[in-house]
Amino acid sequence: MQTHKQLTIGLFGFGVVGEGLYKVLQQTPSLNARIKRVCIKNPKKARSAPAALFTTDKNKLLLDPEINVIVEVIDDADAAFSIVTTAMQNKKSVVSASKKMIAEHVTELLIMQRATRQSFLYEAAAGASIPIIRNLEEYYDNDLLHSMRAIVNGSTNFILTKMFSENLSYKDALLLAKQLGFAESDPTLDVEGIDPANKWTFLLTHGYGIITKTTGLLFTGIQHIRMRDAALAKEKGYEIKLVAQAKKLSDGKIAAFVLPQFVGQDDHLSFVQHEYNGIVIESGFSDRQFFYGKGAGSFPTASAILSDLSALRYDYKYEYKKLYHHAPHELSENFYLRVYVRFDDFSHVPFDQFTCISELHKGSDRKYAVGIVSFAQLRENNWWKQNQVSLVLMPDGILEESDIKIFEPSVAEAIQSMELQF
Amino acid sequence: MQTHKQLTIGLFGFGVVGEGLYKVLQQTPSLNARIKRVCIKNPKKARSAPAALFTTDKNKLLLDPEINVIVEVIDDADAAFSIVTTAMQNKKSVVSASKKMIAEHVTELLIMQRATRQSFLYEAAAGASIPIIRNLEEYYDNDLLHSMRAIVNGSTNFILTKMFSENLSYKDALLLAKQLGFAESDPTLDVEGIDPANKWTFLLTHGYGIITKTTGLLFTGIQHIRMRDAALAKEKGYEIKLVAQAKKLSDGKIAAFVLPQFVGQDDHLSFVQHEYNGIVIESGFSDRQFFYGKGAGSFPTASAILSDLSALRYDYKYEYKKLYHHAPHELSENFYLRVYVRFDDFSHVPFDQFTCISELHKGSDRKYAVGIVSFAQLRENNWWKQNQVSLVLMPDGILEESDIKIFEPSVAEAIQSMELQF
Repeated sequence: MQTHKQLTIGLFGFGVVGEGLYKVLQQTPSLNARIKRVCIKNPKKARSAPAALFTTDKNKLLLDPEINVIVEVIDDADAAFSIVTTAMQNKKSVVSASKKMIAEHVTELLIMQRATRQSFLYEAAAGASIPIIRNLEEYYDNDLLHSMRAIVNGSTNFILTKMFSENLSYKDALLLAKQLGFAESDPTLDVEGIDPANKWTFLLTHGYGIITKTTGLLFTGIQHIRMRDAALAKEKGYEIKLVAQAKKLSDGKIAAFVLPQFVGQDDHLSFVQHEYNGIVIESGFSDRQFFYGKGAGSFPTASAILSDLSALRYDYKYEYKKLYHHAPHELSENFYLRVYVRFDDFSHVPFDQFTCISELHKGSDRKYAVGIVSFAQLRENNWWKQNQVSLVLMPDGILEESDIKIFEPSVAEAIQSMELQF
Repeated sequence: MQTHKQLTIGLFGFGVVGEGLYKVLQQTPSLNARIKRVCIKNPKKARSAPAALFTTDKNKLLLDPEINVIVEVIDDADAAFSIVTTAMQNKKSVVSASKKMIAEHVTELLIMQRATRQSFLYEAAAGASIPIIRNLEEYYDNDLLHSMRAIVNGSTNFILTKMFSENLSYKDALLLAKQLGFAESDPTLDVEGIDPANKWTFLLTHGYGIITKTTGLLFTGIQHIRMRDAALAKEKGYEIKLVAQAKKLSDGKIAAFVLPQFVGQDDHLSFVQHEYNGIVIESGFSDRQFFYGKGAGSFPTASAILSDLSALRYDYKYEYKKLYHHAPHELSENFYLRVYVRFDDFSHVPFDQFTCISELHKGSDRKYAVGIVSFAQLRENNWWKQNQVSLVLMPDGILEESDIKIFEPSVAEAIQSMELQF
């Protein structure tokens, strides 16, 4: 047996994930990893581990030369960034689960990794137990990755599942998610799509070499999805999922965003129910591949951290191949989306700026349209996030100029024909 | 951009996979890979590539110093082994898709890799487009891999799907599979389970560090599955799948085999239909993960080869971590299986050697039993492969001594109670 690095860990955070990791490590002796010290915020809280392990002084971890790995699983993104960068400067490897922190500081973290030559691994930050990052980094070559579509937020998927399978209202489903611990007491990050957009930023880096801020992505969540939308989806044989996606366009640039989408039974993402996560990868010539697993929770997250720790014994580092070894891809704004839009008032939606409309209902019972709108229009305007307007991407809803069939009714025609009816 | 290796390829074989690879490479310029020469057996066959590319002289590839990668996608396992070993000795990297050859020569190939320090990659040999090997090798640590269950043979899965979804007889489903090119004209390797057992040998090496011959594994195929079995499965809410599986037992040893199994709707493998493949991995604390994709076919296989080629540019090698860096696991014989057994004649099954029987039907309309039998009993005897006996593993059918509940009826009791009825 070859020797490999003995890992002496300084752990920041002893919440569900931190405590999960502590328990899990006790059951994996062959990993040769030991938590030497745990830094916590509140020393008065009862802990399920020896008191001697805990400190509130971060320097007891960051300045301990024996500690060669910092694992950071705290909630505070700013504190996490400071811990991570200090640790790397102090020649320690780092494992992190802080998606928000990584999304906000992707550039600085890339620079820091190059400068310090330390490993910085964060498989747990997206898709928890599913090895998404490692596969994007190692397996799918630049040319081969045609598209990726993913459910990377368990809270919103849980809520949507409950709305569809048990006819719960959005409000009741959200309440249930909170009660079961699948949603935070302030669920804004999840339900408004910020969390999946955060994760999507660095998955785009690993998949396509793209560097973007979360604010550089078009995204929304499920905050405006209501039973009316669910009912219509069911009529059409769909469910609604909050899907993060990226697709290589014919000019080689990447269409990327996070939007709710109608998903048919033939879409692998329809398999992803409750708090689970899943990713569908279309890589050149290989058809669709589908990865599925638990996207959150104490043990699944701890298990991803464990796999990172295991890789650290061999000094594994992300190489960011798509960024450094290839010509990185660029985000595109030059494409169209076929969307369903539900509105309370016709004036809330700028239909005159749509490319075409294939369905329009302005009756009192249902008010919605299906039509094609340019991505740039959505990018530059906020109507689709305001006034309770609910926007849902249609299946296969990403279009290029050449895909738009000229025989689709123009906006004026569609509106006129509808006005004749009402 | 960092420079990386220019790949100059010598390709053995220009069947569906070889031709697929040729086409695919033309569409992936950034890979920096060029097929310099293709060695074929039959020079008279019409080919969809320039004639100058082809030769029947293997040395034109193996002795060409400019060729630094040999890709081998031929059908003949013995010829493949000779090509692969010669190529490695001649300091060429090798990519192979020959599962049979790899299964038969795993030890020699390991020695050859250590001796020559050449890369030998074969992601395409199991699960085609699904990155099973790379994930087992890189991501799941020894301690963490509790179990793996997989459908790794597309032909048999196609046949079973047709039997279940369209009520085709085994014979008709097999015929259809042949017509559609999902089964070979001699389907023995597939339907008798040899192909999935071959693949399972090296997946066990990457997953658990186990080295075994195919003959060292307990396996069978679907050759005795009939509509009667399918009908019973349906009654119980199951489908039948041919499942390769491995499970870590409480003593740390591994239960591994390839058998047909009843699979419920809650089993992720029920998602795998037609010619697709899928693998469910249970790794410590992370619940179940599921990988799914096309398991065969020209382009999916070519795409896996492409991913291997892409990895070769960075001199990627399998490290066989579970074998070399850990204490490798051993196969166990010390466990039990809960099985369904259908028979034509009661005397064809040695029920007296069963541990217990929970169901027994000896009537003229249906003759089957459900009971527990030791793995060693199956290992040492062949009754379950003879006389048209059909053996199907029950869901969660792997048991240890401590799992066997003493209140299950003993064999004598079961038989007696049934004899009262008939």
